[in-house]
Amino acid sequence: MIVSRHICGHEFIGEVVALGASYGGHSPGRPPLYSSLKVGDKVVSPFTVNCGECHVCRLGFTGRCPEGFLFGSPALDGGQAQYVRVPKAGGTLFNLSDSSTWSSNLPKEAREQALSNLADSSLLILADILPTGVFATLQALNHPKVAPVLTGRSWPLCFEKEVSGGNEVSFTDEDRVLNVAIIGLGPVGVCTTVSMLDAVANRKISYRIVAVDPNESRREKMKAVYEAIDASGKGTGQFAVCDIEESKKVVKEWTSGVGCTAVLEVVGNTSAISLAYDLVRAFGAIVSVGVHGAPPLPLTGSQLYNKNVSFDFGRCPARAMFPPAFDLLVRRQDVFGGVGEKASLIDKIVGFDEAVESYRAFDKGEVGKVIFDPWK
Amino acid sequence: MIVSRHICGHEFIGEVVALGASYGGHSPGRPPLYSSLKVGDKVVSPFTVNCGECHVCRLGFTGRCPEGFLFGSPALDGGQAQYVRVPKAGGTLFNLSDSSTWSSNLPKEAREQALSNLADSSLLILADILPTGVFATLQALNHPKVAPVLTGRSWPLCFEKEVSGGNEVSFTDEDRVLNVAIIGLGPVGVCTTVSMLDAVANRKISYRIVAVDPNESRREKMKAVYEAIDASGKGTGQFAVCDIEESKKVVKEWTSGVGCTAVLEVVGNTSAISLAYDLVRAFGAIVSVGVHGAPPLPLTGSQLYNKNVSFDFGRCPARAMFPPAFDLLVRRQDVFGGVGEKASLIDKIVGFDEAVESYRAFDKGEVGKVIFDPWK
Repeated sequence: MIVSRHICGHEFIGEVVALGASYGGHSPGRPPLYSSLKVGDKVVSPFTVNCGECHVCRLGFTGRCPEGFLFGSPALDGGQAQYVRVPKAGGTLFNLSDSSTWSSNLPKEAREQALSNLADSSLLILADILPTGVFATLQALNHPKVAPVLTGRSWPLCFEKEVSGGNEVSFTDEDRVLNVAIIGLGPVGVCTTVSMLDAVANRKISYRIVAVDPNESRREKMKAVYEAIDASGKGTGQFAVCDIEESKKVVKEWTSGVGCTAVLEVVGNTSAISLAYDLVRAFGAIVSVGVHGAPPLPLTGSQLYNKNVSFDFGRCPARAMFPPAFDLLVRRQDVFGGVGEKASLIDKIVGFDEAVESYRAFDKGEVGKVIFDPWK
Repeated sequence: MIVSRHICGHEFIGEVVALGASYGGHSPGRPPLYSSLKVGDKVVSPFTVNCGECHVCRLGFTGRCPEGFLFGSPALDGGQAQYVRVPKAGGTLFNLSDSSTWSSNLPKEAREQALSNLADSSLLILADILPTGVFATLQALNHPKVAPVLTGRSWPLCFEKEVSGGNEVSFTDEDRVLNVAIIGLGPVGVCTTVSMLDAVANRKISYRIVAVDPNESRREKMKAVYEAIDASGKGTGQFAVCDIEESKKVVKEWTSGVGCTAVLEVVGNTSAISLAYDLVRAFGAIVSVGVHGAPPLPLTGSQLYNKNVSFDFGRCPARAMFPPAFDLLVRRQDVFGGVGEKASLIDKIVGFDEAVESYRAFDKGEVGKVIFDPWK
């Protein structure tokens, strides 16, 4: 029997202790998302390797770079160790010691101040869960089927660039309400909810958001996080945290039976997809960032056609999504700043000796996100 | 045994001969897409009924109006008759005698001239096949996964409204080429291809388009249509018409193995979906306007996740898409104007006595679109 042994951990933060012989620094031929690194730089790694230099990376689809690997998989050891080897380090790592490589709404000075002030436990969520939440939100808010609600213009006039005409229709206030369900309230689901709330607040979008999970402790965490977000991060709208059956009732009641404009699926199994299908409206968008396995999609062709459903599947290009995720992290220190408090996303920081117990507790939903400190 | 008998025909054009007792004309409370009708008006009907007044219709999702029915189905008799009953006529019908109800890039005078000049056989394609082609094109060109290619900006900077920063990356010319496959070259597939060519020409998008069908006579028709389109309707780019196996080779060669930015699936079966999956790039968009049946989607969750695939399914909201489809019809009389010529979309106009033979020939791919004249 061949047993695959590898080091787990696809999210990590650290310091550059050595540069490999093949590492090349920034040069004019390299795109700006290729980081210059030197020993001593503080870095956070996205959960996948990407070269930063190919066609796929240039487009921002860094999660599917042909040279990519997933950290903490049989193909590449991960971060649950004192040291980790990072292939294609210039393309992969965010250099937290050099904020000049990305553009941001935050001035450079504010960025640098943030980088030196933020706790490592806060920066760590940039490796996967926060950019994945931003990714889900961005896909939903930029989906063509969501466009009429956000622009206040009927299909196809909501697409300004291509259309040569349409029907000028007056919308009611209700027509302009964005109805969203977020399925799955693990750490990524919480980040997705915070990201969506932040986006609708910033853009002054009227909304109703239902956050759904069968697990009570996850729902309690979500409620506590929502309470902790200050007014700037949630604008005005309706927000509910529900179990599965409640979510169906709430969406039906809120939308007079129409269903949600967009459903964000942050679980990755067929039950979650079926629930998303039940909750979404005809001409709605389902954004799935859950990691799906072998089972086929539990939907027939006629179900898909008859409801005019859209689906976006797949992995977050974390390297590309870093800049907006970083800004969100800075804005939302009210929820991403602490450790071990009722509203903290990170429940505790432990040494590897507590790893087995921590995984057990996470699986049971008894604890949220746990960070390992390999030097503890 | 219960046999369902109904009149076929979901595409028709005609003249208002009577208004039902429940018909109400335009009033201040009604949206502009609600048509004022009077006896004698020339009208074209979308293939589905829609009220024109509800939340769903206001958003432009007229193909899924809760009051909707499909013409030519057991629920509602269709247009293969001398007379047809149109429920919700004000919301459903386009009034071709009154161009004041929709906005257009064409001035009102040009629209009216076009309405009086265009042949009925040309206007008839506004009932379904031309708006469906425009619908497929619009969904693809407005998809967030296509945005980097069209804007020349990396994810997430390609979304101007929501993001607070990103990586400023210089694109190569190749990065900005839109690679498209269109699967299925029946009448809707030809309309989709013409619509896509027109859109990329208008927006000066660099493109490579492969149009795919296993049927040789359909491929020949597509080639003839392409030849007939003048320069304004196809800009500059590469265009190929292929059978299935050739299409895989061409896409591989054109894109160095990356795959298509967008695939438009205009067939509606599992083989077409599988081919679309094979041809699309990682982080690509599949737009399916084919009518799908009972079989489940032939893809597993991991296939969808691993390729970051997006899907848009469903029926065209023909009533909402009428204005851009009408403008395209006017612009592209080079291919939509004739009947029975090599490059004509409409192959012939026959009486009902030739219906059975025409259906047989269409099924065999021996003839393209045939129009019935019920008075012939």
